[in-house]
Amino acid sequence: MIAIDWGSSSLRAFRLDRKGQIVDSRRSDQGLLNANGRFAEVLEALIHHWDDALVVMAGMVGSRQGWREVPYVQAPAGLHEIAAGMQQLNDAAIERELWLVPGLRCVDVHGIPDVMRGEETQLCALLPLLGPGTHRVVLPGTHSKHAHVVDGRIERFSTFMTGELFAVLRQHSLLGRMMVEAPDDAAAFAEGVALAGRQGSLLHQLFSVRTRALFDQLQPAQLASYLSGLLIGSELQDIDAEGGPLHVMAADGLADAYVSALALLGRPATRHAEDSVAQGLYLLARARELPM
Amino acid sequence: MIAIDWGSSSLRAFRLDRKGQIVDSRRSDQGLLNANGRFAEVLEALIHHWDDALVVMAGMVGSRQGWREVPYVQAPAGLHEIAAGMQQLNDAAIERELWLVPGLRCVDVHGIPDVMRGEETQLCALLPLLGPGTHRVVLPGTHSKHAHVVDGRIERFSTFMTGELFAVLRQHSLLGRMMVEAPDDAAAFAEGVALAGRQGSLLHQLFSVRTRALFDQLQPAQLASYLSGLLIGSELQDIDAEGGPLHVMAADGLADAYVSALALLGRPATRHAEDSVAQGLYLLARARELPM
Repeated sequence: MIAIDWGSSSLRAFRLDRKGQIVDSRRSDQGLLNANGRFAEVLEALIHHWDDALVVMAGMVGSRQGWREVPYVQAPAGLHEIAAGMQQLNDAAIERELWLVPGLRCVDVHGIPDVMRGEETQLCALLPLLGPGTHRVVLPGTHSKHAHVVDGRIERFSTFMTGELFAVLRQHSLLGRMMVEAPDDAAAFAEGVALAGRQGSLLHQLFSVRTRALFDQLQPAQLASYLSGLLIGSELQDIDAEGGPLHVMAADGLADAYVSALALLGRPATRHAEDSVAQGLYLLARARELPM
Repeated sequence: MIAIDWGSSSLRAFRLDRKGQIVDSRRSDQGLLNANGRFAEVLEALIHHWDDALVVMAGMVGSRQGWREVPYVQAPAGLHEIAAGMQQLNDAAIERELWLVPGLRCVDVHGIPDVMRGEETQLCALLPLLGPGTHRVVLPGTHSKHAHVVDGRIERFSTFMTGELFAVLRQHSLLGRMMVEAPDDAAAFAEGVALAGRQGSLLHQLFSVRTRALFDQLQPAQLASYLSGLLIGSELQDIDAEGGPLHVMAADGLADAYVSALALLGRPATRHAEDSVAQGLYLLARARELPM
């Protein structure tokens, strides 16, 4: 089968054998923002010469702005509920069997909804490995997700705009104008994490990027790492001290930042590779009993 | 005398009589970002034909990026300490007596510095009116300030990046892309203020702008007001329930938003007009015993 991870900014394809092992992979920059609705054309170009009949896709490709909208499945949900929400997509331009994975939704105690689309598939690869009881999984990114997994099912989750806030402040704010390109600075990152743990509003803490530079407590080359620590530290304040083992699932650089921030907060976490999305798609296809 | 309020984005001039009454005023868009260092030229063009010998200036014009940097005065400070920190500026191109007002700095219990430049002059107009005891003054803006005034002196203060965060999220984030131009929506603003008062990280609460739109709990025309309520509500969480009367000093629209958010939080506040900066400059010139 072919497993596709199609998000807003990137598109990845994995060719899997019957046991779910990756035998080949390709990537492109034709995420939703670049593909401009030419979904069939972009997909066929990417998987050209791979002759598998089955294609299963996860991510924003199944959103309102995607190829076709697949309704969110309501959490709590495990592998089988998510597989049951998958939908087949018929497109005259493609002679393969196309399937889309749904996103997940949940509602908090205040009636505020939350959603994920793509991360549920990453989680599907992890669920069978976690064992019984409660686990917390952090999936860092533009919009970080914190999922509560209970007995192998996703019970509920929360989204944090950490990555997007870092990007807009870096590129468009007064704080960003004071920064210079520089390697990561672990000490400045740790200072940001520490400040985020103190009382007071994030809106106030952010201004310390400016004032600490103004009074030479931080150098321009340290400011981006300090801001990153402040934002990631603020996000991680929301994780209760108790509630089961912690897991971080992300690409290397981002996983490093989150695991070290959690360590600074006295909270050991287990790392998991981010490219589990292919494995998640394989497990979903199998749960749905699709012909591989 | 001539009173000048010269900030990053705007420049205002007031002509005052010997009793401090405004007899004329002018404004220009030649703030620091537009003036490009042509300070003398821009000033003379704006106050042309006003033949007063004394010119007193407040705001970013006295910062490192301004005409000349005037060191911050350390809080606690009142009218007389600020007046003592004023510096005369000699510029060969100007045949008037030029003075610059200093900004204020303070340090919190964690050793993190904070600064203001311009707002101290607005506060100078208010200080004589407040009477003894503790008062809290909120000065909303791009960078909101909360000042603690004790017995007529500015004891300490905190900055909140509320206005700038609203602007960058409105213009550059996923949230802004979902918004449409629309009049203020009081109900959506109140919902944002209410959510900000609940437990949880602002980074998570921000994502509710997206999800509540996705599930039709809010319409696109309501989203900017909702985001504004969320950010202002978050800022105002930092004000203790006790600690003396509350005051809001801002231009009309912004004062409305802050006073109504405080009312929703059960905290009555007194409004003060923002254009007190001319009065503050007059009181500072008098305290410094400058020839008017």
